Amino acid sequence: MRIILVGASGDVGQAAYAELSQHHDVVRAGRTTGDIMIDIADRGSVDAMYDKVGVFDALISTAGSVHFAPLADQTDKTLKIGLENKVMGQINLVLSGMAKISRNGSFTLTSGVLDRDPVISGMGAALANGALAGFVTGAAMEMPRGQRINVVSPGLLDVSEHRYGALFPGHDRVCSKSVGRAFAKCVEGTISGQVVIVK
Amino acid sequence: MRIILVGASGDVGQAAYAELSQHHDVVRAGRTTGDIMIDIADRGSVDAMYDKVGVFDALISTAGSVHFAPLADQTDKTLKIGLENKVMGQINLVLSGMAKISRNGSFTLTSGVLDRDPVISGMGAALANGALAGFVTGAAMEMPRGQRINVVSPGLLDVSEHRYGALFPGHDRVCSKSVGRAFAKCVEGTISGQVVIVK
Repeated sequence: MRIILVGASGDVGQAAYAELSQHHDVVRAGRTTGDIMIDIADRGSVDAMYDKVGVFDALISTAGSVHFAPLADQTDKTLKIGLENKVMGQINLVLSGMAKISRNGSFTLTSGVLDRDPVISGMGAALANGALAGFVTGAAMEMPRGQRINVVSPGLLDVSEHRYGALFPGHDRVCSKSVGRAFAKCVEGTISGQVVIVK
Repeated sequence: MRIILVGASGDVGQAAYAELSQHHDVVRAGRTTGDIMIDIADRGSVDAMYDKVGVFDALISTAGSVHFAPLADQTDKTLKIGLENKVMGQINLVLSGMAKISRNGSFTLTSGVLDRDPVISGMGAALANGALAGFVTGAAMEMPRGQRINVVSPGLLDVSEHRYGALFPGHDRVCSKSVGRAFAKCVEGTISGQVVIVK
């Protein structure tokens, strides 16, 4: 398969790449590095990426940012960062990609653990993760031409410990190889409308 | 208790009012009817409502709109309607109200069934409902001064059959009295961070 991987340089993106590049042609896209540059919050940039890539069979997104802050410091503006970027950015990849992906192609997005096991300062992430789960559940039944859509919801990766560990006290770290396999399950399998939890 | 009910004229709002007005002083707020007018998508309007009401012990919101349309007709703009109104509108009520509500007060928001049992044209609602579930889960642990936050997720109400029934083929209708009791459970009980499903 020819797979576009958006967010390839992040920890989750690297886990997906390590697994899927063994058997597939993976085009890496990212904000500042990769085969193609893309800003997922900009619909024009999303369309330009698809035009450059041409034919593809699967889209994996491990991209999107949210704002971490205590609830007392959150405003409608800071909470919207995750809705605009992590949520609508990833949804833009689907809305633009549906007309371009191969028959029976798949879209696999990424959320995270914080809407099922919250932490202090994480409600912006929880908001975004829940939104992505809802969208995938609702959109799956209307995907055209046999297309599928899922979202992988990983806990904090073992390799992310040094960067984000302090934000996730008491959370078990998840194995990066397991996270990679979750993306393979979505791309190579037949599931649709699922939140694939990796814990 | 003194309870503010935003969205009081809708079917869910009326169910909440019927249950809670038996034992509490309920101030009804709405976009076009009620004791107080409010546009939840406008933070200034939200603040003005709280200023008018003064002291209160609970806030119930049954307000918020989403855009129903087939996936093929949805755009980032139409999907954002639910995020701006149903999601950020209800969150605005919490962000502004946290400093004003009584000690141990509660916020109870409303989502709906479509992120757990989707229907055609309902992915905008599913997106919004999932977002609200995530926010409540994430925010509960940081609510100040003993405050609680929950979201009621009802299926299609029996009384809404004539208006929305055609959109929910095969969905069981839920009893309005049960929906009212779900709000009483959130307001009069001690739960927090919960999605209270009524089916």
